[in-house]
Amino acid sequence: MMNNEQLIDLVGQMTLTEKTAQLLQLTSNFYEGTDTQGQITGPMEEMGITQPSVEASGSILGLSGAQAIIDVQQAYMEKSRLGIPLLFMADVVHGFKTIFPIPLAIGCSWDTQLAEKSAEIAARESAVSGLHVTFAPMVDLVRDPRWGRVMETTGEDPYLNSLFAAAFVRGYQGDNLQEETDRLAACVKHFAAYGAAEGGRDYNTVDMSERNLREYYLPAYKAALDAGVEMVMASFNTVDGIPASGNEKLMRDILREEWGFEGVLISDWASIREMIAHGAAEDDREAAYRAIRAGVDIEMMTPCYVHHLPALIASGELSEKLIDEAVLRILQLKEKLGLFDNPFRAANPEREREIVFSKEHRQVSYELATKSAVLLKNANDILPLNPQAHIALIGPFAESEDILGWWSCEGVKADAVKLGTALQERLGTDHVHLAQGSGVHTITSEQIAEALEVASKADLIVLALGEDSEMSGEGGSRTDIRLPAAQLELIKHLRSTGKPLATVIFNGRPLDLHGVWEESDAVLEAWFPGSEGGAAIADVLTGVVNPSARLTMSFPQSVGQVPVYYNHFNTGRPLNPQKTEERYVSKYIDSPNDPLLPFGYGLSYTTFEYGSLDISGQELSSELPLTIKVKVTNTGERTGVETVQLYVRDVTGEVVRPMRELKDYVKLELAPGETGTATFTLCEAQLRYHHSDLSYRSDKGTFHVYVGPNSRDTQESNFKLV
Amino acid sequence: MMNNEQLIDLVGQMTLTEKTAQLLQLTSNFYEGTDTQGQITGPMEEMGITQPSVEASGSILGLSGAQAIIDVQQAYMEKSRLGIPLLFMADVVHGFKTIFPIPLAIGCSWDTQLAEKSAEIAARESAVSGLHVTFAPMVDLVRDPRWGRVMETTGEDPYLNSLFAAAFVRGYQGDNLQEETDRLAACVKHFAAYGAAEGGRDYNTVDMSERNLREYYLPAYKAALDAGVEMVMASFNTVDGIPASGNEKLMRDILREEWGFEGVLISDWASIREMIAHGAAEDDREAAYRAIRAGVDIEMMTPCYVHHLPALIASGELSEKLIDEAVLRILQLKEKLGLFDNPFRAANPEREREIVFSKEHRQVSYELATKSAVLLKNANDILPLNPQAHIALIGPFAESEDILGWWSCEGVKADAVKLGTALQERLGTDHVHLAQGSGVHTITSEQIAEALEVASKADLIVLALGEDSEMSGEGGSRTDIRLPAAQLELIKHLRSTGKPLATVIFNGRPLDLHGVWEESDAVLEAWFPGSEGGAAIADVLTGVVNPSARLTMSFPQSVGQVPVYYNHFNTGRPLNPQKTEERYVSKYIDSPNDPLLPFGYGLSYTTFEYGSLDISGQELSSELPLTIKVKVTNTGERTGVETVQLYVRDVTGEVVRPMRELKDYVKLELAPGETGTATFTLCEAQLRYHHSDLSYRSDKGTFHVYVGPNSRDTQESNFKLV
Repeated sequence: MMNNEQLIDLVGQMTLTEKTAQLLQLTSNFYEGTDTQGQITGPMEEMGITQPSVEASGSILGLSGAQAIIDVQQAYMEKSRLGIPLLFMADVVHGFKTIFPIPLAIGCSWDTQLAEKSAEIAARESAVSGLHVTFAPMVDLVRDPRWGRVMETTGEDPYLNSLFAAAFVRGYQGDNLQEETDRLAACVKHFAAYGAAEGGRDYNTVDMSERNLREYYLPAYKAALDAGVEMVMASFNTVDGIPASGNEKLMRDILREEWGFEGVLISDWASIREMIAHGAAEDDREAAYRAIRAGVDIEMMTPCYVHHLPALIASGELSEKLIDEAVLRILQLKEKLGLFDNPFRAANPEREREIVFSKEHRQVSYELATKSAVLLKNANDILPLNPQAHIALIGPFAESEDILGWWSCEGVKADAVKLGTALQERLGTDHVHLAQGSGVHTITSEQIAEALEVASKADLIVLALGEDSEMSGEGGSRTDIRLPAAQLELIKHLRSTGKPLATVIFNGRPLDLHGVWEESDAVLEAWFPGSEGGAAIADVLTGVVNPSARLTMSFPQSVGQVPVYYNHFNTGRPLNPQKTEERYVSKYIDSPNDPLLPFGYGLSYTTFEYGSLDISGQELSSELPLTIKVKVTNTGERTGVETVQLYVRDVTGEVVRPMRELKDYVKLELAPGETGTATFTLCEAQLRYHHSDLSYRSDKGTFHVYVGPNSRDTQESNFKLV
Repeated sequence: MMNNEQLIDLVGQMTLTEKTAQLLQLTSNFYEGTDTQGQITGPMEEMGITQPSVEASGSILGLSGAQAIIDVQQAYMEKSRLGIPLLFMADVVHGFKTIFPIPLAIGCSWDTQLAEKSAEIAARESAVSGLHVTFAPMVDLVRDPRWGRVMETTGEDPYLNSLFAAAFVRGYQGDNLQEETDRLAACVKHFAAYGAAEGGRDYNTVDMSERNLREYYLPAYKAALDAGVEMVMASFNTVDGIPASGNEKLMRDILREEWGFEGVLISDWASIREMIAHGAAEDDREAAYRAIRAGVDIEMMTPCYVHHLPALIASGELSEKLIDEAVLRILQLKEKLGLFDNPFRAANPEREREIVFSKEHRQVSYELATKSAVLLKNANDILPLNPQAHIALIGPFAESEDILGWWSCEGVKADAVKLGTALQERLGTDHVHLAQGSGVHTITSEQIAEALEVASKADLIVLALGEDSEMSGEGGSRTDIRLPAAQLELIKHLRSTGKPLATVIFNGRPLDLHGVWEESDAVLEAWFPGSEGGAAIADVLTGVVNPSARLTMSFPQSVGQVPVYYNHFNTGRPLNPQKTEERYVSKYIDSPNDPLLPFGYGLSYTTFEYGSLDISGQELSSELPLTIKVKVTNTGERTGVETVQLYVRDVTGEVVRPMRELKDYVKLELAPGETGTATFTLCEAQLRYHHSDLSYRSDKGTFHVYVGPNSRDTQESNFKLV
C-alpha cells in the first residue's frame, strides 16, 4: 500500500525518460521482442520506438491469459528500476470468453441489474486471466444505424444510456478495486460524441452546438464518472473542429475542471498521431503538445509523447508539471488496483481454467440473451412455435456460429450454441428440418431448391437471417442497411409457399426491414446474442421464455429517413397524421416521418391492458413531486413482463425541447389475469435542461406526461411546473 | 422625396395601432375583402384580424399584375391617414413570367454575369407588373439532396454561393432603386442555415457549432448584404435550439450589430406564430415578444404583432422604441423605392404587355438554360446527335411542359418550349420519332410496346426522364432520390434494344443515378431549364451549343451516402484509394466515400489538355500574393468553354480545414487547337478562416493548391504562408 505522498515521491524519483515511457501504451507484440535476447521487433522499428521505451512503458494493450501476463509482468518487474508494475488493458466489451449479447441488445433488455451482472462476470474472467482494465463501457449516444459501432452502445436515449453506463461501471469495478481483485478498472468511451459521426461513416467529422453536446451526448459519460469510472478514453472524431485527443475544451475544461475527473485519460488507438491526418497538428511534436495540454495521460500505439515531450519541456513550451500529473494519475490507478503490492493481482492459470467460460457464467449470458431478443411482429400469434408442428429452419444463420458479434474478445465462435442445434434439442430432429437457403451475401438455385424442398415438409418456416459480424462493429459502416439481396430473395421464395413464416434476425444495427417485414408473419430481432445465443433464441421461439425486450434505437423506414429518433423536436410545421397530403409541413413526400418501429417498442406472447393515468396533482414544484400511477393487467394466457415507460414533454422552453423524453420506467411481471401498478415519482430536477446560455435549470409552465408500452402508444396527461 | 428626419417625424405621427399594422404583411386575398363594402374575409376572421389592421397594414404578399396593384394601392392610399403607401412583395425566384432555369441550374453555369442579367430581367418584368420587392435570392448552403429546396440555391460551396448571391442582388436592385424603377428591392433568405435541415426534411431542426455556421453557412448571406441587399428573411428552422424568427443572437447580435444591417428583416410565412409549435413560445404574445426583440420588422401572415405589441408596450415589457425602429426601417425602404413620390412606381399595364415574356427576355432564359445543362457522360461521343440519324425521343419529359420547376411565379407551363417540339423543329419530324414511354410515376405495357416500336425505327434513343416539379421545391423532400421505378423500368426496356442511348434528365436535385448511369451511353442533366428549356436542350443535344456547365452540388452514389460534399474534412483515418480493403479507415464497407460525380464536374463536346502548374513562388505573405498559371489547350474539334478551378487546402489548422476549398475560377473559351492561360492571384485574405475562438485569420504553414476542371481531377502544388 502506498499513500499519495509516496506516489508523488515516486514520481519525483523518475527520470523524464521514465516518466514519458510511463505514458506509452503498446500492444503485447512489442513485448514478444523484449525477451532475454532483447530484440527490436518490426513495429518498434516502424514507430521509431527504442527498447528502453518499451521496457519502461506503463501499460500493455490486448494481451491476455494468466500465464502470459504473469510472464511479461515478471520480466518487466525484474528490469524496473523503481518497481513500478505494468498495467494490462484490453477491449472486454461484452464479455471476455463468455460472450454476452452485444451492448445494443443488452440495452434492449432494459435490465440494468443483469447488465451489471454481465460486466461483473466479464471482469471476473478477465481479472483471473491477468487483465486490469477494460476499455468499456462504450456509452456513445447514436442516431444513425449506418454506423457500425451502434452495436456497441445501448442506444439513442441519454437517460437509458446513463443508467447502463453506471451499471456497467459498477459491474466491472465493484465497490473496491483493491480488495475485489476479480474486478477491473473500467474506461468509459469514446469521449466525446463519437456516435454522431457524419453520414454514419466511422471516424468521420462530428459537429454540433455545445448545447446539443451537453444536453444529449455528454450525460452518459458523466453518469459513468458519477459511478466512479477510473478511466476515460478520447474519441477518434473531432468535436467542433478539434480532434478529441487534442481538445482542451473537452478534456481539460469540461472533463477535468468542470466535472472534476481525476482518473486516467487515454487516447484511442493512434489517435494522438492521427491529429496530423486530421489536419490539426503539423507533426508528431505538435500532436504531443496538443494532447498533453488537453490532458491525455496515456498515448496508445503512437510514439509522439516518448519522442517529443522531453524536447517540449526542455524548450520551455511545456511545463514538466503536466507530465508529472499524468504519471501520478497512472501510478494512482496502479495503486488502486493493488499492483504495487501484488503486480499479478488475480492472474491465476489454475483458477482461470475453472472460472472462464464456466457454466454459471454462460447461464447469465443465456438469460441476458432471452431478455434482449425483441419480438417485433407476431401476426396470428404464429409464435411461440407449436411443439407438435414440423418446423423448417432455413437461412444462413440456421446453423451459424457467427452470432457473437464484433468485439468478442476471447470468445470462440465454435463454442457458440447454434440455433439449429438448440431447436432440434428442444423439439426433436424429426420436427426441425434444416436448410441453409443462402449464404449471407450469395444464393444459388441449389440452395433455393433445397430450401423449398425442406419447407414443403413443414407446417411453419423459421427463417434465420442476418448480417455477419463484420457488417457492423468498428469499421463496419454501411450505406445500405437492408439485409443483403440474397437473403431478401430467399425470403421471397419461401413466402411463395404460403406457409406461416417467422423470421429471426441476427445482426448489429437497426435495419431497413423492407422485404422482411411485409413478407413475414413474425419477426424476432435476436441481435448477436452471444455464447448461448442459439439456446436463448430457441427458448424464446418455443415459448419457454416469453420475450420482453424493447428497442432502444428506432428502426427507420429506410436509410433515406436517417436520422430518425424518438426524442426529436417538433418543428414549426409538424405533420398532422390526419392530413398527410398537406404540402407545407415538415415531411417527406415519399415516406412517413415516423420510424417503422419506435424507441421502446417490443411485443410479448401475452397482452397487457392499461388502466387510466392517475396523476397526483396538476402542479409540480421543487418541493412537491408528482406521483403518476397506472394499473396494468395481463389479459393474455401467459406470464409476461411489461416495461411501462414514462415520458415527458416540456411544451415551451427557452430553447426547443424534445417531443418526448424518457424519464423513468418500471418492469412489471404479471401472471395471466394479474394486475399490477406502475408508480412513478416525477421531480423538478428531472425537468431541467441546458438553456441557450448553457445553464441547467427547469422552466415553469406546462408539461405533457405520457405513459405506455413504448414511445408511441401512450396515454397522456398534463401538469404545470410552478 | 423625404429625408430621414421627415421619416422619423412621420413615425412620430403614427398611432401605435398604425405602427403595429405597418409591421403586418398579408396576402392579397385579404384585400379582396377590403372593397367598398368593407367586408371581412374568411382568413381575416380565422386570424382574428380586424378591418382596420388590414387597411393599415404595411405590405402585401403575392399580388401581381400592374392594374391589380394600382387598384389596391389607390384604394389604400385613399384611406391612408398619413399617406403611407403599401409595399408589394412576391416570390420572384427564377423569373417573373419569363422563367429562367432553377437557381441550382443557374449555379451550374458558373456565369454570374448571366445570373445577374436574369435577375435584372425578372426585376423588370416584376416592376412593370407593380411589384416592389422579391423574396430572393435564396442563398442557403446545401449538402443534402433529399431536401426539396436544393433546387432554389446555387449549391454546396460558400464561395460560389457568395458570388451568385451578390450577382442576384445586383441584378434585382441595380445601382439606385429610386431612379431605376424597373428594379426590385431584393430580400436574401433564409437567414440562417435553413439548408441544413436534419434528414433533408423541410422545416426540420438545424444544429451545428457556431464556428461551422460562420465558416460555411453565413458567408453567402453576408455577401448579399455586402452587395447592398435591402431585406433579409428569417428562416423557418431553429438555430441552436431557437427558431430563427425569435433568435436574438442571430438577428440582433450577428445580423444587426456585428454586420450592421440596417434594412428590413421579415419573417417567413407564419414563422413568428410557428414558434409556438416549435415549443419556443407559449402563445402569440410570447412569439411577438421574442420576434420583435430579435429584430424581425415585418410579420408575414400571422397576427402576433398586431394583437400583442400594444399590450406588451403598455405593460412595460417592451419599449416602443423597438416598434419605432422597425416602422422606420419599413418607411425607409418605401422611400428608397420612391413610393412616397409615386406609390405606383413602375406599374404600367400597357408597358407590362410589351415587356413581360418578351422575346428578348426569353432569349436570355434560353442562353442561361444552354449554359446550365451539365453533360455528365458521353461514351463514344454519341452526343451531339448526328442530324442525319433517326432519333427516338421517348419518355415522360419528351413532350412535357412541366419544365419550369418550382417557384415559377407567373410562369405558364403551356408557354414552355417542349423538347420534342424543339427537336423536331431542328431535325425534322421525319427524323425525330416521339413516344411517351411512361408517366413520371407509372408505366403500362402499351407504353412499353409503343416505346419499343418507336425505338426500333431509330438509330439512337434519347430518353427524356425526370422528376415532376412537385417532387422538389418547398415541401418536396424525398427519402428516395432515384428516378421513379417506372422510369427505371422504361430505361431497361430500351437498353435491351442495344441501340445507343442518351438520357436527358429534367429535375430539381442531385439524384442517385443507379439505373440510369450504367444503362445510358450519355447523360445530360437539364435540370428544370425554364421557359425556353426545350429549345435550349435541343440545341445542346444537337451541338448548336457546346455544353459547359459544371455541377455545384455533388451527385451521391446513393442516399445512404448523404451528406457528401467536396469540401469535407480528412478524418484521422482517411481511406487510401489504393487500399480500399483496409478495415480501420473512414469508409463504408459497401460504397465508395467519394460521390459519383464531384463538385465542379461537367463535360464538353471537345477536350481540353492542361499544361503544368506555374506558381510564382513557394511562399505567400500578406504583402506578397502568389500568381498561379496554367495553360489549357482545346484538343478537340469544337470551340468550347473550360472552367478552370482553383482549390486550396490548409494542411494544418488550429481547427481542421477542408480537403479542398474553391478559391477562384476562370472561364476560357477556346477554339479547336487554341491555347489559353488561366491566371489566378491568391492572397493571404483568401486563406483566413474561423478559429475555435471564432477569430477570423490565417495560419502560417503549408498549403496545397489544386487546379483542374473539377474538384477531383486536379494538379497539385504547394506553398507556405509566411
